[in-house]
Amino acid sequence: MKIILIGAGNLATRLGIALKGAGEEVMQVYSRTEESASRLGHLLGVPWTISLEQLYDGADLYIASVKDAALPHLIPQIVRKREEALFVHTAGSLPLSVWAGSATRYGVLYPMQTFSKEREVDFSSIPIFLEASSTKDLNLLHSLADKLSRSVYEANSSQRQALHLAAVFACNFTNYMYTVSEQLLTEAGLPFEVMLPLIDETAAKVHILKPEKAQTGPAMRYDENVIGKHLTALATHPAWQQLYEQISKNIHHDQLRLKEDKGNSL
Amino acid sequence: MKIILIGAGNLATRLGIALKGAGEEVMQVYSRTEESASRLGHLLGVPWTISLEQLYDGADLYIASVKDAALPHLIPQIVRKREEALFVHTAGSLPLSVWAGSATRYGVLYPMQTFSKEREVDFSSIPIFLEASSTKDLNLLHSLADKLSRSVYEANSSQRQALHLAAVFACNFTNYMYTVSEQLLTEAGLPFEVMLPLIDETAAKVHILKPEKAQTGPAMRYDENVIGKHLTALATHPAWQQLYEQISKNIHHDQLRLKEDKGNSL
Repeated sequence: MKIILIGAGNLATRLGIALKGAGEEVMQVYSRTEESASRLGHLLGVPWTISLEQLYDGADLYIASVKDAALPHLIPQIVRKREEALFVHTAGSLPLSVWAGSATRYGVLYPMQTFSKEREVDFSSIPIFLEASSTKDLNLLHSLADKLSRSVYEANSSQRQALHLAAVFACNFTNYMYTVSEQLLTEAGLPFEVMLPLIDETAAKVHILKPEKAQTGPAMRYDENVIGKHLTALATHPAWQQLYEQISKNIHHDQLRLKEDKGNSL
Repeated sequence: MKIILIGAGNLATRLGIALKGAGEEVMQVYSRTEESASRLGHLLGVPWTISLEQLYDGADLYIASVKDAALPHLIPQIVRKREEALFVHTAGSLPLSVWAGSATRYGVLYPMQTFSKEREVDFSSIPIFLEASSTKDLNLLHSLADKLSRSVYEANSSQRQALHLAAVFACNFTNYMYTVSEQLLTEAGLPFEVMLPLIDETAAKVHILKPEKAQTGPAMRYDENVIGKHLTALATHPAWQQLYEQISKNIHHDQLRLKEDKGNSL
């Protein structure tokens, strides 16, 4: 398949490497800035451009990985007169319909993962969620995605938005909990490394237990003694104190509900 | 070493199994309820009691793993006239000094992990934090802990409280983020399994990057477009909506600070 990548951020970079590794032909990359366009162009060994005017015709697939807010403005320039090609974006929170009216063949290829420049990821373990304007193109995307990942699913636009939102909690907000943890340890003169076994076990546990069932800690037991001490210890970090209080309340309410559910099922 | 376990919860159970596996002699277990006392007694093949009056004399070490609020009331009955023995508790948030005035030899052995009945843990990977009233007893606890775990540290009471608080964020609150994620997926008709690769990668990333550097997502980019959509999607869950808003603000502020720090270091 002849493919053009529009965007050269973390996702476009990882995707480009994975596509090349799968034997696909990346024809060209576009990015708004010369720095990132040339970086990805060199990395993949393909021509690059910073002008959508100079985007090649003749690709089978145009993959747009740009900021959500930017894409709608770029679509007319990307699609232009290339009505025979297939156009996809890679965003969790943009609907399929963003292409409607401009393109005739379009879809979404959403790899759900956290990409940082500093870390390689094994693309084959990343779930990819697909949607397309026709069954034929859905099948086409499926056969491409199957070369990239072991976990390929179909998801409509509203499911994909739920996935993205759920991923914000499970990944971005989880990482923020790690950040607070790391800063508290630093203040106490302790290395973050001591927390890694617990972080790993917390992630491993939800492979075999539902998160609600895996919950432990003072909030679950509603141990007001410990909660009170922790809130006092957080006095110099009002934002974290507020967060502690709020999450603890939520955990406690959820666990009460869980007990009630159990009671009702007897 | 002759050891008596006071408490039969998740931590006491895992610790008892690990102590037995390390060749230590568990003499007796105590729990407030017959159900849990007999369960752990049978599991370890040792006598059990529900009365502190019937606690054996002659152990080298008494390990108390009970609720933080309960321990201070139990201490006089645990220590009684056993002045030659060593007494430790296993709590993150209780100071060493909780024993002072009652015992003459005392300490803390705090294994930092999340224990659930439904899941076995490899005790050897769990960090254990030690504190004791004398160097001699600290060394004694160190040699015992070294048999149980590869990661044994010393930590004073204020460091241990910071560890416990940091663990609440990295484990308990992280697990709550998983819970919200799971419930959002369920509402969209999607299985939680699709989130596991992202959860694993999020945990794996902070082994090589500081959490602040590993941060990704709409809050970090301050993508108001996506944040707005997510807040709308959470309208039926006001508690989660409030949490989303608050954590996103914190992430954004932290990232701004990070950029400023970088700027200042030029």
